[in-house]
Amino acid sequence: MARRDDPDTGLQALVDDIAARMAGETERGTQADYIPELADVDVDRFGIAVAPVEGAPVFAGDADVAFSIQSISKVLTLTLALQKVGVDLWKRVGREPSGDPFNSIVQLEYEHGVPRNPFINAGAIVVADAVLGERSPKEAIAEILAHCRRLAGDDTIAIDAAVAKSEARTGHRNRALANFMLAEGNLKNPVERVLEVYFNHCAIAMSCRQLATAGRVLAAAARDEGYDRAQMTPERARRIIALMLTCGQYDASGEFAFRVGIPAKSGVGGGMLAVAPGRGSIAVWCPGLDEKGNSVLAGRAMEEFARATGWSIFNG
Amino acid sequence: MARRDDPDTGLQALVDDIAARMAGETERGTQADYIPELADVDVDRFGIAVAPVEGAPVFAGDADVAFSIQSISKVLTLTLALQKVGVDLWKRVGREPSGDPFNSIVQLEYEHGVPRNPFINAGAIVVADAVLGERSPKEAIAEILAHCRRLAGDDTIAIDAAVAKSEARTGHRNRALANFMLAEGNLKNPVERVLEVYFNHCAIAMSCRQLATAGRVLAAAARDEGYDRAQMTPERARRIIALMLTCGQYDASGEFAFRVGIPAKSGVGGGMLAVAPGRGSIAVWCPGLDEKGNSVLAGRAMEEFARATGWSIFNG
Amino acid sequence: MARRDDPDTGLQALVDDIAARMAGETERGTQADYIPELADVDVDRFGIAVAPVEGAPVFAGDADVAFSIQSISKVLTLTLALQKVGVDLWKRVGREPSGDPFNSIVQLEYEHGVPRNPFINAGAIVVADAVLGERSPKEAIAEILAHCRRLAGDDTIAIDAAVAKSEARTGHRNRALANFMLAEGNLKNPVERVLEVYFNHCAIAMSCRQLATAGRVLAAAARDEGYDRAQMTPERARRIIALMLTCGQYDASGEFAFRVGIPAKSGVGGGMLAVAPGRGSIAVWCPGLDEKGNSVLAGRAMEEFARATGWSIFNG
Amino acid sequence: MARRDDPDTGLQALVDDIAARMAGETERGTQADYIPELADVDVDRFGIAVAPVEGAPVFAGDADVAFSIQSISKVLTLTLALQKVGVDLWKRVGREPSGDPFNSIVQLEYEHGVPRNPFINAGAIVVADAVLGERSPKEAIAEILAHCRRLAGDDTIAIDAAVAKSEARTGHRNRALANFMLAEGNLKNPVERVLEVYFNHCAIAMSCRQLATAGRVLAAAARDEGYDRAQMTPERARRIIALMLTCGQYDASGEFAFRVGIPAKSGVGGGMLAVAPGRGSIAVWCPGLDEKGNSVLAGRAMEEFARATGWSIFNG
Repeated sequence: MARRDDPDTGLQALVDDIAARMAGETERGTQADYIPELADVDVDRFGIAVAPVEGAPVFAGDADVAFSIQSISKVLTLTLALQKVGVDLWKRVGREPSGDPFNSIVQLEYEHGVPRNPFINAGAIVVADAVLGERSPKEAIAEILAHCRRLAGDDTIAIDAAVAKSEARTGHRNRALANFMLAEGNLKNPVERVLEVYFNHCAIAMSCRQLATAGRVLAAAARDEGYDRAQMTPERARRIIALMLTCGQYDASGEFAFRVGIPAKSGVGGGMLAVAPGRGSIAVWCPGLDEKGNSVLAGRAMEEFARATGWSIFNG
Repeated sequence: MARRDDPDTGLQALVDDIAARMAGETERGTQADYIPELADVDVDRFGIAVAPVEGAPVFAGDADVAFSIQSISKVLTLTLALQKVGVDLWKRVGREPSGDPFNSIVQLEYEHGVPRNPFINAGAIVVADAVLGERSPKEAIAEILAHCRRLAGDDTIAIDAAVAKSEARTGHRNRALANFMLAEGNLKNPVERVLEVYFNHCAIAMSCRQLATAGRVLAAAARDEGYDRAQMTPERARRIIALMLTCGQYDASGEFAFRVGIPAKSGVGGGMLAVAPGRGSIAVWCPGLDEKGNSVLAGRAMEEFARATGWSIFNG
Repeated sequence: MARRDDPDTGLQALVDDIAARMAGETERGTQADYIPELADVDVDRFGIAVAPVEGAPVFAGDADVAFSIQSISKVLTLTLALQKVGVDLWKRVGREPSGDPFNSIVQLEYEHGVPRNPFINAGAIVVADAVLGERSPKEAIAEILAHCRRLAGDDTIAIDAAVAKSEARTGHRNRALANFMLAEGNLKNPVERVLEVYFNHCAIAMSCRQLATAGRVLAAAARDEGYDRAQMTPERARRIIALMLTCGQYDASGEFAFRVGIPAKSGVGGGMLAVAPGRGSIAVWCPGLDEKGNSVLAGRAMEEFARATGWSIFNG
Repeated sequence: MARRDDPDTGLQALVDDIAARMAGETERGTQADYIPELADVDVDRFGIAVAPVEGAPVFAGDADVAFSIQSISKVLTLTLALQKVGVDLWKRVGREPSGDPFNSIVQLEYEHGVPRNPFINAGAIVVADAVLGERSPKEAIAEILAHCRRLAGDDTIAIDAAVAKSEARTGHRNRALANFMLAEGNLKNPVERVLEVYFNHCAIAMSCRQLATAGRVLAAAARDEGYDRAQMTPERARRIIALMLTCGQYDASGEFAFRVGIPAKSGVGGGMLAVAPGRGSIAVWCPGLDEKGNSVLAGRAMEEFARATGWSIFNG
């Protein structure tokens, strides 16, 4: 097992070990099947990357295979939205766990169109609207993509056009959410323009290596050392990480905090990005999901990683 | 301001400073008024105590005045219940934020009598039932009190009998919750026996000093050093602290995590107990509440303390 | 088939025919099983009685066997409560269909302890509290029983003490509802006193013949001829019948109105009392219930009766 | 006051009397203001028309002024949908009162996209989809209009294009409902095509005289005499009238049944169409609404009419 006082060699051995054990797992859950691009992904894929604040990053498995990051993009776009509009964003979206599935519309009705937090779909649609501002969707999407490339330090990151198209074709429930918020006065742009931004940022493809590199910016900024101040302020990093902990896994967020203790955001593409403030970032990808829409083995890998490294924020 | 590398003198100055500033605050919220014992407390009271894992505890204001800890007792009783029944407890109560007020019955109906977490009233009633087991309420209450005394290292801690009696007299909504869970098969003892335990543990009176000392056990156990292993295991401490973060402030838990970042549990007596794993424990008491039932100035004090010390778990 | 212009001989032939056909039915649903007194009733029982406003009553099957009228008592007690407290009752209970099962507590929370209508459990508990007033439960129960005897013209009607005892033993969910309303200020008496009245009136045992006779008072008063004005006013009768139509079958009320068109109230003992204003009253008893808690064959018998007689209020 | 045995002269005197009294009312509620075409209507308008099954129709006030019938169209289109697709419609929409406002989306989520009844917006959107079938929206709209003209016996009835356009411009909440049902598989056509039908049928303009004439078909068919069998069957008429009673006034339907007792459907244009089976039809128009979206004075007029005539279905 890796130890905290031997991060370089220990971390590599640890991720190798985790990847090897996950390869042998037979209960892997099921891929998302609402669009063919996700349904066709090989459920045996598994990648893991760790980008520590101090020391070199480590990888194992399919760590360089780009996959559809889906809802993980909500973290990346939120950081951009906060840069652009600042705390005014919180007038339009809350910061409480929702206690409901990611695409529930019930809470929206009871709370008059203000989503509980930016990591449920309705909240991320508001964030997309804030990033869109008064520009064209294309400009906003280009800026989001540039933001992701900058965080990940990799200009090859791209949007999977087929995924974006499939999302737009099947995204009726998101259209319901957006129209509902428009009716309540909580969208400033027409629904289809906002959703163009939303569907495209969900369709960004990144590898575990790229995600972990991006997540490391948050982990380092939280400690306020070893990062680029132009990208992130410590206070903002800490608050985004807090939201990842309380709201990052939909209505399984509390359980994940209890079991793993590293703030993380999941996506239905099977990816998961975790940020241990001051320690580093972990990205895992394995396409099979549990009934809440979170990757079965990404969650397991995170749990084993947290136990081995003591990176849980509750460890002291 | 206190600095992390100078804990002893710095902390004392910090709590003095916070207490002085809070004394001048005029917007203090309003005491709970559903029982006379809480309604009659002086809203100008303010106490703060910090028990660091390393170094001497510090105090300011009314840190030695015993007050009704109310829902803070849910943390202390949960630690006892986990010692007694272990993980089986989680078959009867969940670990997710509720997204509802502390005494909501809606979620119970949708989820067939299984409370979302042990820190809403329904969850704490299940915990009380688990602690009660097959004994008499008196025996269970005595054990809870002994447990609190042991954690706080102070045998003078007592239950305020007048508070317990008032709780029993006015606790119709808790009776509704308990009867509902009994109907759903999630209580093992008769309602009135369980509620006798519940009302009595809510009526425990403790000072900030006593609470901080008890909370320090969790903070130290989370780091796995400087505590009594007979009282707590590291894993259990970390998980309880995780629950405090995600569920400790009712439907304001996400906001508190976002703003303060130290896991904490509040009570309608105006108390708040925060645990920074590996760092220490902070207890604040100020009777005026906000509309969610959390102490206005205790929250403010915690925020200032976190900013000054960097004890937020999101700081890295 | 019976015809409207030949009520006497036609009705007898019709109920004989219906009883004969129902005897052959094999899909009869299942008895309520939450108390032994209901679980032990023979599912093959079937009784029907019709008390026309004009002409002699007719009977078939087990029309003289007393059974537990359960929620049908809500109609009888409501008529008494309106005599006693008048329209002030409607400050404490609504007149809208609930859209929820009979024992839902969700609506109570959203609407601050005011039940949607007097025919869901919470509403009937408020009605029981209104009838109780400042007397002892025994006096109130005696008055309710006397009221039923008077309406049915039969002094042998009695409360089944074993049923009342079983209801009290198992009625945790009703205790939850009552405590919730007490907490919201919508009960004037202690929960157990109100529930003593409630459980006892649910435990009244009546036969189809007795029920139809009582229902005939409503049917005749609605037309304002052929009844005792001391028992009922036309306006009150019409309004109670309206409530039976919109709220009498819990969340299957709309379906029943659509399919049968005669206002009716069901009970989990398998009884059903229908009132066709100006025409007459029909009581059917068959213990097997559907998943909504309404008697399968009583509903079927009512449907056939309505089709044959044209007594639907929607027939013109 | 009019009497049942003197319908011709009595009815005219009655509607004159009602119209005169309503003209003096000062508390008239407020017009719908979500589109200018409704906001600009004069709140002092009042029209009433009664079309008895036997005898000549009578009118008073603005009975010949066409107004936007809005949700009253849901009754007319439902009769068409049942002609076209028959009882299969009930696989896609329920027949229970909703207990929620007309445009609530909460129930849709809990019940997986199946609206409670055809008179809430979601239900009427499903009905519009059923009428649309595989044709173009224009063809479906033309058929609905022809259907209304046929029922009312008046080929001048038209759709108010400005209203239809405003509905489409502001109908975000209906788009939310439609997209939600599409996501749940309960729409067969694209949202915008279905909503084109929906918005246009809501924009039909009719006078009280025309509406009462159309409603008379239902009233006569329910009694099975004095109507055109090609337009309606008795069974269908009775069932539509039953739905009007239980679901016709949104979450005020129970109250209306209790207070008035004539099945009726309201629209936010201030119109109300009531059908007393076997007796006749009443249409009232007065633009000011109460907080539930029902015309204040139309409801009052219906109540006075019912009391004077005894046309309540609960009168016997």
